[in-house]
Amino acid sequence: MHKHFIFTLFLILSICKDISAQSDYKFTLEQLIPGGNEYSKYTPRIPKRFQWNGNSLAEIENDSVWIYDDPGKFNEKSYLLSYSDIQEKLKGSENIINSISFSPEGGSLARFYTGNGTGTYDYNHKTVNNYFSYPESSENHTLSPNNELLAYTKGNNLYFLDNYENEKQVTKETNTDILNGQAVHRNEFGINSGIFWSPASDKIAFYRMDETMVTSYPIVNMSAKVAELKSIKYPMAGMDSHHVTIGVYDIRKQEIVYLKTGVPDDHYLTNVSWSPDGEYIYVAELNRAQNQMKLNRYNATTGDLVKMIFEESHPKYVEPQTPLLFVTNKTDQFIWQSKRDGFNHLYLYNTSGNLIKQLTAGEWEVTDVIGFDDKGTNLYFISTNPTPLERHIYSVNLKSGKITQHSSMPGIHSASLSLSGKYLIDRFSSHDNPGKVSLINTRNQKSELLAYADNPFEGYNIPNVEVGKIKAADETSDLYYRLIKPADFDENKKYPVAVYVYGGPHSQMVSNRWRYGSGGWEMYMAQKGYLVFVLDNRGTAFRGFEFENITHRQLGIEESKDQMKGVEFLKSLPYVDTDKMGIHGWSYGGFMTINMLLRYPDVFKVGVAGGPVTDWKYYEVMYGERYMDQPQENPEGYENTSLINKADNLQSDLLIIHGDEDPIVVMQHSSQFIKACIKAGKHPDMFVYPGHEHNMTGPDRVHLHEHITRYFDKNLLSL
Amino acid sequence: MHKHFIFTLFLILSICKDISAQSDYKFTLEQLIPGGNEYSKYTPRIPKRFQWNGNSLAEIENDSVWIYDDPGKFNEKSYLLSYSDIQEKLKGSENIINSISFSPEGGSLARFYTGNGTGTYDYNHKTVNNYFSYPESSENHTLSPNNELLAYTKGNNLYFLDNYENEKQVTKETNTDILNGQAVHRNEFGINSGIFWSPASDKIAFYRMDETMVTSYPIVNMSAKVAELKSIKYPMAGMDSHHVTIGVYDIRKQEIVYLKTGVPDDHYLTNVSWSPDGEYIYVAELNRAQNQMKLNRYNATTGDLVKMIFEESHPKYVEPQTPLLFVTNKTDQFIWQSKRDGFNHLYLYNTSGNLIKQLTAGEWEVTDVIGFDDKGTNLYFISTNPTPLERHIYSVNLKSGKITQHSSMPGIHSASLSLSGKYLIDRFSSHDNPGKVSLINTRNQKSELLAYADNPFEGYNIPNVEVGKIKAADETSDLYYRLIKPADFDENKKYPVAVYVYGGPHSQMVSNRWRYGSGGWEMYMAQKGYLVFVLDNRGTAFRGFEFENITHRQLGIEESKDQMKGVEFLKSLPYVDTDKMGIHGWSYGGFMTINMLLRYPDVFKVGVAGGPVTDWKYYEVMYGERYMDQPQENPEGYENTSLINKADNLQSDLLIIHGDEDPIVVMQHSSQFIKACIKAGKHPDMFVYPGHEHNMTGPDRVHLHEHITRYFDKNLLSL
Repeated sequence: MHKHFIFTLFLILSICKDISAQSDYKFTLEQLIPGGNEYSKYTPRIPKRFQWNGNSLAEIENDSVWIYDDPGKFNEKSYLLSYSDIQEKLKGSENIINSISFSPEGGSLARFYTGNGTGTYDYNHKTVNNYFSYPESSENHTLSPNNELLAYTKGNNLYFLDNYENEKQVTKETNTDILNGQAVHRNEFGINSGIFWSPASDKIAFYRMDETMVTSYPIVNMSAKVAELKSIKYPMAGMDSHHVTIGVYDIRKQEIVYLKTGVPDDHYLTNVSWSPDGEYIYVAELNRAQNQMKLNRYNATTGDLVKMIFEESHPKYVEPQTPLLFVTNKTDQFIWQSKRDGFNHLYLYNTSGNLIKQLTAGEWEVTDVIGFDDKGTNLYFISTNPTPLERHIYSVNLKSGKITQHSSMPGIHSASLSLSGKYLIDRFSSHDNPGKVSLINTRNQKSELLAYADNPFEGYNIPNVEVGKIKAADETSDLYYRLIKPADFDENKKYPVAVYVYGGPHSQMVSNRWRYGSGGWEMYMAQKGYLVFVLDNRGTAFRGFEFENITHRQLGIEESKDQMKGVEFLKSLPYVDTDKMGIHGWSYGGFMTINMLLRYPDVFKVGVAGGPVTDWKYYEVMYGERYMDQPQENPEGYENTSLINKADNLQSDLLIIHGDEDPIVVMQHSSQFIKACIKAGKHPDMFVYPGHEHNMTGPDRVHLHEHITRYFDKNLLSL
Repeated sequence: MHKHFIFTLFLILSICKDISAQSDYKFTLEQLIPGGNEYSKYTPRIPKRFQWNGNSLAEIENDSVWIYDDPGKFNEKSYLLSYSDIQEKLKGSENIINSISFSPEGGSLARFYTGNGTGTYDYNHKTVNNYFSYPESSENHTLSPNNELLAYTKGNNLYFLDNYENEKQVTKETNTDILNGQAVHRNEFGINSGIFWSPASDKIAFYRMDETMVTSYPIVNMSAKVAELKSIKYPMAGMDSHHVTIGVYDIRKQEIVYLKTGVPDDHYLTNVSWSPDGEYIYVAELNRAQNQMKLNRYNATTGDLVKMIFEESHPKYVEPQTPLLFVTNKTDQFIWQSKRDGFNHLYLYNTSGNLIKQLTAGEWEVTDVIGFDDKGTNLYFISTNPTPLERHIYSVNLKSGKITQHSSMPGIHSASLSLSGKYLIDRFSSHDNPGKVSLINTRNQKSELLAYADNPFEGYNIPNVEVGKIKAADETSDLYYRLIKPADFDENKKYPVAVYVYGGPHSQMVSNRWRYGSGGWEMYMAQKGYLVFVLDNRGTAFRGFEFENITHRQLGIEESKDQMKGVEFLKSLPYVDTDKMGIHGWSYGGFMTINMLLRYPDVFKVGVAGGPVTDWKYYEVMYGERYMDQPQENPEGYENTSLINKADNLQSDLLIIHGDEDPIVVMQHSSQFIKACIKAGKHPDMFVYPGHEHNMTGPDRVHLHEHITRYFDKNLLSL
């Protein structure tokens, strides 16, 4: 008995010691940064995935699939299949099934993907209906809607495999600067594909991009035995841009017809959409100035322009980003998204170009459209209502206009809808929720928890993340920030500050997702005793069009004023060591980092800018001219926003980091800024990651963050 | 009187104050570094230049020329001409005369050079005999011996202007990877020209270099509006090398004959020499392995190989660097330089290939040949006798073999000989002599001071430079060092140390020239309180062939052992702060810098490596394979000397600097070493100078040295 007591005490003490050891534990960059060897261990992970198969709910765990025929009966699931069932049918193939996707329309066919091919599996008959091995060097694989044909590109041409797996070449372009079947316009305007199957799988619309007139930018692979040139076509602001057209290949006739999209050739052909009957193709066409958009309908057989449906213009810019969504069961009506009333909202049009009604309105934005129920009665969508920090699931009744909120838990929700519209799979996280999946009954909003992620930091005493808001430099707009404090924060101490900044269009850093979106480096820095501060300035997304386009023709100027409001806020906090503030950002955030150092030289002692834009004249046409116009149209704007001609203002320690194969923000930005610094007698530091492009991935991302941290420590903590 | 006294006192006090202010003055990098805006003010400059015009001595000061018809009569000089005299005759030309050169053979013709042309001026008749404007884009301008024709290259072809200034095209190569008339073999083997006029000015021998089989190395000009590719042909060790042949163009026949130099094509054709009668061309031909040289005579009319004169071989390498020098008045005898007895010496041969005699011998080296007197009796040369720290002027009597020393003042001498051989112009400097020119009478060695440079640091209390010697790691060889001490050096204090290193073949850093060769950065560092140390390790020049070739197949290994002997010496000095030692070098010195940090990680806390070789496999064929053989022949040598595979050893702060257009040590060296460091979790720093090649010139060189100094200060002084 006595002995037992001692042992128990020992056990209790051991546990306490363990917990204490845990709470003091400092996570490493290998644990906190993507690419780190223990990163996955500390990344929230929901163990199951869910998909709709018509009205049945498929639950996938590892390589096993269960099915709920009636999702409402939450205990009645049946085992459907294992990936290995499919694998066994793939005769002569070594391919492992990587993923499976069921049809939202239902039926017993599921698409599956191996590392090197794709096909369809009939789970009722337990047969592989077809399987396409990806031809060597092929890319952009796109299955036809009927799953019977696989389109893809090889080099600069478009091909497809027919249902006997014979390769057919659609385009026969020999000039390698003319590309067919690839995404165009540098993936702006929501473009991420260059292959568009007709609904009946009998035609392929595809982009053709002529880059012969575009300047080549030389990128060098330094890791070859002898360094090798890898030139890219990079149209810089104000220079000749590529010419895009849209071809339509008729599989039966084996003929290509090009849509007669006319001149000027450097316009943008965006958001290619087939009409449900496959007779027409809609294209949202934007002029190079990006201030006038025409939604045009073309005859898919003749290529003729049939009708200009409507146009939208704006003195600053118009930015179509989503294709037409036709109303289920009403092929003459479609949904269009527009910011024309100042916020991104949904509009119901008919194909004659008449606006039937504006479906949503208010000082919030529709951020995603989920789809219709099978009657086409209700349209489901995601919006920033009631707070831009969150995303909630709504539906709008097309007839009554009534809007219903379906999600109630706080946070960022995304969703998919069952065929009938009766149920939603709701995926959401929030600052204290690392990830959950619920099933929502859209009739009564009741929800059932399907799965959740464990908190990987459970039991550890980790830095705390707070969110708040301050006024922008316009004294009117609310700006949201997050502030990360060391775990043992003591308001009577003084802390050095690391500001992490992005600040560019299309971005939102602060929202009510897991840890308010705070990433591993922020936690690492807070563990080291830094306060970390992140502020979404004006110019960023989801806050309305004026909040965003205030930056037009003057990128970086209003943004920096807002970031200074953040600095003022930080300086008002008694526990901030205002002599020890540093700033770091990547890409637009790299631009903002240097921008802040040069516009407000007394504020930050240290800056680390990764892949920074330093002069918009070196940036590309599509993104660059949207915000800055052409250099010849806006010389004073380019002059005012250039960092190169302000190098003389540099007073801080500045580390510039660039991937030497960056095809997005080309190395010239850093190189020419450094050159200006040399001329001005300034001494920034730099580091180049050989073989890396714009975003640092893989294990080197850990090294990168160690490098950034060392620079902060060395130059800030030593002060 | 009283007033006068006060004024005088005031004057004296003012002067004292001035001197005191002067002695404390710290020179800036703008004053100490080439490219700095006040650099010329602190660089010793001899205000007059001297040349031989036959037996007359020409004295040039600014643009005026005086002549001493009898140099022995030192007070009898007469005004000869002014550059403006020539300028006035150049009708229709805006060109300013930059320089003039008299004929060592005498006569009244002087060559002159403008910024854009060259010609001859007859100072007796005060007429411009002829003037050739350089054609647009022309390079490598080479006047014929008779001054009547001007050969040059444009693009990849050879041209000349005839005496009517009509352009004649010699080669008509359309493939731009085949070059005619340019220096070949990457300027190794003493090659610095590709055009060789026959003595009678009737033929042009020229190099033809076929680089079609050589890998292109992509260099990018980042300062163009859009970065532009500037590829170079760069044959890397072990890879396909260029093929060189020698053409001979007969001006009258307008025909090219190629010397039948045979195979293999990647041999080296070096030291092209015309026979005095213009009938033959001698070529020192070296195999790619560089261990066997054949001196061959070719018929200049037929291209036929007439005779192999002699051959030299060595298990390590043979390195011919000087053409044949025919004995004046004996066209069948010539001087050959060779290291065959272990030191570079002079050999007298006849054209049948018989060695008549070895003219010089001993444990010292001939470093330069001045020439013969007009009888061909005595040959004048420069050598390292009696100390490798100095260069003295000697002559050898070809008949008796008697050697006479002509220079007596300590230091580094260079010289030119009057036509008769009676007088020498002796140019020399030493550690306390910033530069003098004397006239030496070769009969009695009496010398007259002609001109001298002022000490630009006169009156300033500047850092002191000492020279000394230590034993090499072989415990036998003497190694010379210089040590720069702060002006207010106090042996009871502890000083941080900056080691400056080069250490590669062909170099000598320490010698008895002005301030022992110590440069501006060393003075700058000493002013800041550093000791600066420079040591010539084994592998460097002028110390004999074994001293140099100990590094064969293992560059950097013995050198680093010797540098460690220097470190041991430093550590033995009571006033050295052994915890605060840094090292810096450029090119081979950049290689040595990183090499030292990786081989002896505990020694230097800081290193700054500029344009460093990091793996000899990325270096070129000619220099690289001489010392390292081919990678496939010496894999373990390449492995052992590679810094890339030792990145893991890095413990010091290391800054790597590279010019991003470096065509000599290509950027790949730094890039791939950085990549290895990233993989090893190491964090070197780097800096790239946009638009710079291998050697940093111009104002940016000042920035560079400020950058280097800051790195030392930041990382060493803060310890």
